[in-house]
Amino acid sequence: MNAIWNQCSKELKAALQNINLEGKPAELYEPIAYFLSLGGKRVRPMLCLISNQLFGGELPKAMPSALGLEIFHNFTLVHDDIMDQAPLRRGHVTVHEKWNQDIAILSGDVMFVKAYEQITQSEPEKLPELLKLFNQTAIQVCEGQQMDMNFEESSEVSLQDYLQMIELKTAVLLAAALKLGAITANANQKDADLIYEFGRNIGIAFQIQDDYLDAYADPEKFGKQVGGDILQNKKTYLLLSAFEKSDATQKAQLEALLSGNLKGEEKISAFIELFNQLNVPQHAQSAMQTYFDTGMQALNKIQEVKPEAKKGLVDLAEVLMGREV
Amino acid sequence: MNAIWNQCSKELKAALQNINLEGKPAELYEPIAYFLSLGGKRVRPMLCLISNQLFGGELPKAMPSALGLEIFHNFTLVHDDIMDQAPLRRGHVTVHEKWNQDIAILSGDVMFVKAYEQITQSEPEKLPELLKLFNQTAIQVCEGQQMDMNFEESSEVSLQDYLQMIELKTAVLLAAALKLGAITANANQKDADLIYEFGRNIGIAFQIQDDYLDAYADPEKFGKQVGGDILQNKKTYLLLSAFEKSDATQKAQLEALLSGNLKGEEKISAFIELFNQLNVPQHAQSAMQTYFDTGMQALNKIQEVKPEAKKGLVDLAEVLMGREV
Repeated sequence: MNAIWNQCSKELKAALQNINLEGKPAELYEPIAYFLSLGGKRVRPMLCLISNQLFGGELPKAMPSALGLEIFHNFTLVHDDIMDQAPLRRGHVTVHEKWNQDIAILSGDVMFVKAYEQITQSEPEKLPELLKLFNQTAIQVCEGQQMDMNFEESSEVSLQDYLQMIELKTAVLLAAALKLGAITANANQKDADLIYEFGRNIGIAFQIQDDYLDAYADPEKFGKQVGGDILQNKKTYLLLSAFEKSDATQKAQLEALLSGNLKGEEKISAFIELFNQLNVPQHAQSAMQTYFDTGMQALNKIQEVKPEAKKGLVDLAEVLMGREV
Repeated sequence: MNAIWNQCSKELKAALQNINLEGKPAELYEPIAYFLSLGGKRVRPMLCLISNQLFGGELPKAMPSALGLEIFHNFTLVHDDIMDQAPLRRGHVTVHEKWNQDIAILSGDVMFVKAYEQITQSEPEKLPELLKLFNQTAIQVCEGQQMDMNFEESSEVSLQDYLQMIELKTAVLLAAALKLGAITANANQKDADLIYEFGRNIGIAFQIQDDYLDAYADPEKFGKQVGGDILQNKKTYLLLSAFEKSDATQKAQLEALLSGNLKGEEKISAFIELFNQLNVPQHAQSAMQTYFDTGMQALNKIQEVKPEAKKGLVDLAEVLMGREV
């Protein structure tokens, strides 16, 4: 697995550097080059390339999809940052802050076309299938972002709504990355669908894990402040699960904490105590495990991948379940 | 020609109505259905379909490109309206005003994907060529919009810069519409390029005409206030041409008018007088005619279209030179 991983990583890095991001006017192209240079773990293109390799494909045939996925993901971040009024991304100033909002909208739009430019370079006979999945996924990601924005305004978000939101906003793109890689490797339809299911379930598990770690991570190992979501009153899996499991008294306590005056560690501790009372961490870990297992079951049904390669996908799932995606 | 025109118009209308714009969350899809229902002349899809017909193509094969062009054009309007802070579009409230800015960004993004969804339904063997042109054009339109925004901030815009801006922002999409139609009709490469050149030049001529009419139209026939661009100090072909043709004294007069206190009809009359002194209307009409003639020359070189069909394209150019595009 390491050999495949390293090979994909090396080829991806070279291909990313070869993308032509020059153009005029400079106001349009400089933000694109800036944003793509901020890095990130390149998880989506890596999933695509590794999937291609595990199904015995040729790496160059998956590269257009891989690059398209990475540019698309970054495009969504540029536009999301405007909507979230985020000042920072990956430790650097966001595009709308560094330039301005109009430039962030428009250079985002150009990135979106650049993503399609990459996909367009796929093998012509695969193009309709790749595009269809890519289009569908792009729309789902936008739907997920809109749901996420709606949740901020809504006082009645169910756990089920939340799961649908993270599926759309995060999981389907990971799933599509794997499936695009499989398609470029001529995987059969059933296997391609199975690896999509694997990715979708692991993606949801990953997002629940993300919420869990935000409140329960070891502060020494966690890259940012533990409890950040709590301080922001963010509707996470933990908070929504707490509402779902609580009786009237506990609901009132939750509401009081959300609208109360507690700050910093005090607020975090009060929430954690209530979460623990309600067995929220156990519920979250159990949900996470269920999605993880469902993903693994899909993986086990895949036919055309050799057992040793399947081991690679399990490793991949573990990597996905790590923090930084 | 009328028969082709009517047939294309009828088929387009039906196809537009068949586009599935339903989806959830409603906040994302209602703005799209709203905006596409505001109408407009559907010039770009009509150019695509008519070009397909004139090259002897089958209409259904051009329809995905035609619909993609129309949705793409409307997507650019939704995002442009945010950047221009426009309250109205086609006499109706803009998306960012009716909903909010975040929704306008995101539903615009979905429209962009919907445009690609249409193109993706083209004949598979034509897809790479169609997409390549569509991607290139989409990027150029964004470049044109960025140039247009830059011009608002800049005091040194040359006539040449302006011509490049209108070419990118307006003309190339009209040109691409014609070429996409030609490609779907199996036109040869040379003819497809020639009809692109025809469209590009007629498009530039149209935009100069648009600027000219804003100041010199018959108020009785003109749909909106004559002199609107002048009142807004808009950098039009007329104003930039006036600067280019003026001596130091006249330049100072122009600057004084731009920063002065004159309002309404007084301001318009003062500009018109200066424009007339500098022969600006003649220069504009001559430039317009030159682009128009260059377009017609490209048209005349097209091989595979019968003379009577070519007459159809001349009619089309005349329609394009009419006001409402």
